[in-house]
Amino acid sequence: MSTIMTRSVEYTHDDVLLEGFMASPSAPQARPAVLLVHEWGGIGAHVQARARQIAERLGYHALAVDVYGKGVRPTSREACAETMMLYVNDRDLLRARLQAALEWVRMQPDVESGSIAIAGYCFGGLAAMELARSGADILLAASFHGNLSTRDPAEAKQISCPVVAFHGAADPLVTQDVVAGFEQEMSAAGVDWTVVQFGGVMHSFTNPDANDPDFGTVYNAQAAERSFAMFGQYLAAAFDEANKVS
Amino acid sequence: MSTIMTRSVEYTHDDVLLEGFMASPSAPQARPAVLLVHEWGGIGAHVQARARQIAERLGYHALAVDVYGKGVRPTSREACAETMMLYVNDRDLLRARLQAALEWVRMQPDVESGSIAIAGYCFGGLAAMELARSGADILLAASFHGNLSTRDPAEAKQISCPVVAFHGAADPLVTQDVVAGFEQEMSAAGVDWTVVQFGGVMHSFTNPDANDPDFGTVYNAQAAERSFAMFGQYLAAAFDEANKVS
Repeated sequence: MSTIMTRSVEYTHDDVLLEGFMASPSAPQARPAVLLVHEWGGIGAHVQARARQIAERLGYHALAVDVYGKGVRPTSREACAETMMLYVNDRDLLRARLQAALEWVRMQPDVESGSIAIAGYCFGGLAAMELARSGADILLAASFHGNLSTRDPAEAKQISCPVVAFHGAADPLVTQDVVAGFEQEMSAAGVDWTVVQFGGVMHSFTNPDANDPDFGTVYNAQAAERSFAMFGQYLAAAFDEANKVS
Repeated sequence: MSTIMTRSVEYTHDDVLLEGFMASPSAPQARPAVLLVHEWGGIGAHVQARARQIAERLGYHALAVDVYGKGVRPTSREACAETMMLYVNDRDLLRARLQAALEWVRMQPDVESGSIAIAGYCFGGLAAMELARSGADILLAASFHGNLSTRDPAEAKQISCPVVAFHGAADPLVTQDVVAGFEQEMSAAGVDWTVVQFGGVMHSFTNPDANDPDFGTVYNAQAAERSFAMFGQYLAAAFDEANKVS
């Protein structure tokens, strides 16, 4: 555990102002960075907690990116779904928003510009895989209970990094058919992929506030901890490999 | 990395003499122990290397158990299959052989008798799950490219520990149907289960000597390392939890 600093950061995509949340270890030093993408509600307590966790326990910068735009933080289930679907249905726009965050973080003087990964939760898991499918120069893409669908399986050929998906086997919102489709997509493209399935675990298992079994979202402390540790292992391997090559 | 000691150990089941291989950290101290079960050829270079790895890198005792009996070390593919099938088809005998190893290791003065786990490779993965299904008092059962079949799914209700299976998604010897059956078996019994699938990876991926793609067995250094690290994480959690409770 190290002490950390957090701050709000602003950057833009075209003329849209975006407001991210950055957590960094306090000791000034060039470090890898992890982009984290929020759930359907936009940046909130959960993704901020995960950013702090990465900075504290793993010693990397963690930037919670803002896909929706500053101040766009829907709260009702309907508004969340409506806002999210704008980006699920326009994956070019989604990728451009993520690319803007990637470019911003890469410019930061204390970020190792060649050591950047992305991860996300629910909608953010889909986003992480979309950035990978765009062919972006990143070292790892990870999904936690993410929507693993694609608009075109052939785009997986552009992926240049390992991908890993952590999934609740009892997730009723992202079903086993979708997971199997993702595995086939990645296998067909020759991607280095890993899928970890946790038995009896539902959607949103990393989020301590998730507690709606009828909807399909339930926190699971054990799966959250296990997946975080595996994620840390994959990040360390990816960043170490980058340092060996460079 | 710590220095380790290895030794041959003899124990019995009924009147059958069994010869295991034990690797231990050199520093004398009470420690947890991991039972490791061999592939279809019996104890050989691979399971011995994995035992050394556990002692060196994780700091636990590792006992490569002998299911077949001292000197029973088949070499041809036909002889390996024939010997293995004796135990695949007589799971009571298999469990009894494992139970004998469990009792032996638990009696060792430098073993924490309440902190024992089991893992295995190929046939040994099946064996690890069989010991769990017998209701044995162990803290974790892990399979590496194991045969995940069962004689009776209802027996999974007797499992009292987490189970984890590391699997090559391109394994032609243990197919995805078998993996799905295992997941259903464990879910129906309410077991704490994890399945990790590695894309493009075949059978025997932990074994550096496996190099027969036509047969379906190919070493994969990356999947071997990833699965070992995850296994270490699950062992540490299981043993730490045991120490908290006791």
